[in-house]
Amino acid sequence: MPESTLDKVINLAKRRGFVYQSGEIYGGSRSAWDYGPLGTELKENIKAEWWQTFVRGRGDMVGLDSAIILPSAVWKASGHVDTFTDPLVECTQCHKRHREDHLIEAFEEKKGRAPEGGLAEVPCPDCGTKGKFTEPREFSGLVKSYLGVVDDESGLHYLRPETAQGIFTQFANVVTTARKKPPFGIGQIGKAFRNEITPGNFIFRTREFEQMEIEYFVPPAEAGGHFDSWVQACVAWFTDLGLNPENLREFDVPADERAHYSDRTIDLEYRFGFPGSEWGELMGIANRTDYDLGQHIEHSGKELSYFDQASGERYVPYVIEPSFGLTRSMMAFLVDSYAEDEAPNTKGGVDVRTVLKLHPKLAPVKAAVLPLSKKPELAEPAGKLADSLRKHWNIDYDDAGAIGRRYRRQDEIGTPFCITFDFDSLEDQAVTIRDRDEMTQERVSLDQVQSYLAAKLLG
Amino acid sequence: MPESTLDKVINLAKRRGFVYQSGEIYGGSRSAWDYGPLGTELKENIKAEWWQTFVRGRGDMVGLDSAIILPSAVWKASGHVDTFTDPLVECTQCHKRHREDHLIEAFEEKKGRAPEGGLAEVPCPDCGTKGKFTEPREFSGLVKSYLGVVDDESGLHYLRPETAQGIFTQFANVVTTARKKPPFGIGQIGKAFRNEITPGNFIFRTREFEQMEIEYFVPPAEAGGHFDSWVQACVAWFTDLGLNPENLREFDVPADERAHYSDRTIDLEYRFGFPGSEWGELMGIANRTDYDLGQHIEHSGKELSYFDQASGERYVPYVIEPSFGLTRSMMAFLVDSYAEDEAPNTKGGVDVRTVLKLHPKLAPVKAAVLPLSKKPELAEPAGKLADSLRKHWNIDYDDAGAIGRRYRRQDEIGTPFCITFDFDSLEDQAVTIRDRDEMTQERVSLDQVQSYLAAKLLG
Repeated sequence: MPESTLDKVINLAKRRGFVYQSGEIYGGSRSAWDYGPLGTELKENIKAEWWQTFVRGRGDMVGLDSAIILPSAVWKASGHVDTFTDPLVECTQCHKRHREDHLIEAFEEKKGRAPEGGLAEVPCPDCGTKGKFTEPREFSGLVKSYLGVVDDESGLHYLRPETAQGIFTQFANVVTTARKKPPFGIGQIGKAFRNEITPGNFIFRTREFEQMEIEYFVPPAEAGGHFDSWVQACVAWFTDLGLNPENLREFDVPADERAHYSDRTIDLEYRFGFPGSEWGELMGIANRTDYDLGQHIEHSGKELSYFDQASGERYVPYVIEPSFGLTRSMMAFLVDSYAEDEAPNTKGGVDVRTVLKLHPKLAPVKAAVLPLSKKPELAEPAGKLADSLRKHWNIDYDDAGAIGRRYRRQDEIGTPFCITFDFDSLEDQAVTIRDRDEMTQERVSLDQVQSYLAAKLLG
Repeated sequence: MPESTLDKVINLAKRRGFVYQSGEIYGGSRSAWDYGPLGTELKENIKAEWWQTFVRGRGDMVGLDSAIILPSAVWKASGHVDTFTDPLVECTQCHKRHREDHLIEAFEEKKGRAPEGGLAEVPCPDCGTKGKFTEPREFSGLVKSYLGVVDDESGLHYLRPETAQGIFTQFANVVTTARKKPPFGIGQIGKAFRNEITPGNFIFRTREFEQMEIEYFVPPAEAGGHFDSWVQACVAWFTDLGLNPENLREFDVPADERAHYSDRTIDLEYRFGFPGSEWGELMGIANRTDYDLGQHIEHSGKELSYFDQASGERYVPYVIEPSFGLTRSMMAFLVDSYAEDEAPNTKGGVDVRTVLKLHPKLAPVKAAVLPLSKKPELAEPAGKLADSLRKHWNIDYDDAGAIGRRYRRQDEIGTPFCITFDFDSLEDQAVTIRDRDEMTQERVSLDQVQSYLAAKLLG
């Protein structure tokens, strides 16, 4: 079977230091990943673009950064303690437990069809015994943590399963201190945790992940219109950053599949190319109505409604929630930008090259400075150029191997520009700048390099 | 007793939405804080400056983002499971436990001197009984978490108490994939957790906090020189961002007070103005020697040494670790920039004004657009100006109240520039830009506002 694009991307991500297995030297695990130098930069760039587009760039939005460990009362009020559960079945042969939905998903991925006889047809992933599972029992997806001097109920806390509740609990404080009135929103980027029994698909489903969430507070009667605008804004964000619209689709989640708080949900799905069903959820936009604020009003006894001075009316705002997965977004941008095309080689023929056609704003390295030789007469001024560009961007410096090979290394990690410093540079005080996608080359005067890159990278 | 500067800063931070108590509507806690719109922006700006200075801006540094929950084997190898403990004493009257060192600290803060008779003189903070404490017992500072389907030892995991170990475990992967050789460093920004029994001093000591850490790998013989350079670089980072050097001091930590892994530690202390001892630890620079890599080599059986091809030698690098507290840095920048001075009022006299003289790069709001009237003829073009500036910076728009009062509101949160859009602006297509510190005003053409701010903010 030929290697799928997804497999190629995963291999590239591991080989080049986008993503490592967490604790790999101790055997690692499938449930957690560390982000290497390139992955960290890519992730930072995605966050920065999101924050600029949805928070700093809008007059109706502000940011927030709430704690991961909130008082347990928050999760009781939100319904998570009672209803944030997954159905688990136990194999009666080996006594290992599994999520029922993941067993079925795995079967579908392997066979390309649903198991007709339900779990009866499905083997246990641990011992291989077919269909010897107990009836499903609900199991909490919250990660428990104990604080204080004894491990008992008094110290039981939960790691947040979503950043959203931190926003709801601070709604009144934000209204007062930031002097905001609906429609307005609060954005937050941060980690969330789920007790995933069967994590998988690389960084797609992990127990620890980053979310980029917006809670947008609106007068109830305007919720429908804002919902539609946010769906459009979310799609536009991905496509403006280069995601192919053909690999995105909207899934209007039916009532019986929606979370307990949602009156309407549209999932944006991306064509990740998973075996079996190739689409996966990238993010969701939900109309959470006044459910969360209402729950917190009831449980805390605090006033979380909004008094509109103009109309003299008091109301509990409805909330439109665009909730993005940061690491899923990163995975989508990687898959979408992966390409294999042809590049001229030094023998006058062509080689196949691997290239990440990442949007320049997302590319982890903006430019690479490549001195044609390691000799000090080139290395010294080339190093100076790299240092001066580092004041503005993440810059690579690579002096190892043939220039063609160095281009390949940069193409593979999506570097938009390669700057070759050659012996002529000493004479004409200029360098050759090569464009990743067009593979065209331009001679640019040394004192123009920064403005040349600035124009290309910001545009 | 007059309100101290520290108290004033804390009150300002709460009132203006820099920091809120976590879960305040449920009674909150002293151990966790949420960052409101202004605090989040300030924190983001500090992170961005740190990342630019120490990671992107240097050719010898790369970034990493490792998981919060690593395999427990990591914390056994690092020594944290065994030695990351604090001495706890129990009050034999009310059976509440306390950290011995914090009891003594609290006594010192209140009395301005150490308790001569040791704990015998110190009252229990819960029941007030004096000196009825048990002998101290060591208690783990690690936050426990349970993953998987049952809460037993097999599922026991720890939330990281420092980001550093994620870096050490990926040392070999970074060397290979980023093709780095010592001296080089890996930087990371992220949350860490400590099971603090007695958190306190606002955001100074909390159970959940953000670190900005660098592990800088060097040939052992060069460790001393690199240690000294990093101390200088850290001090320079704070003072370049405006911190008054008189409020910073170096504390060379004596051997018996150093962490188990450190051969030398210098703490940078900042004059926070705590009652009693006014200085507090802002960050530390430690020479961790080859302790951590050595422990991981021993426990994992993996090769984490470095082979220097030039010299033909294999060695385990020494590690210089500059470890910054992000939230402590934020607190220091707030305290340091707080000032009360005089501003002219409309009656020809002067008013006392509160101003945060934050470095423009750190200021949460870069400029505020203030239309002189709410009338649409001003509001519409002023709103347009604000929107155009939002493409580059975090911008406020304030149309409420007298202009002097709006200036005061912006001064108090450290906004470097106020842009007044008045009726003349409709004629001359220009606005008045007021400088926060000088309180001077300049008339600037509308089409020059962006470049005017760009020059001032980047400089």
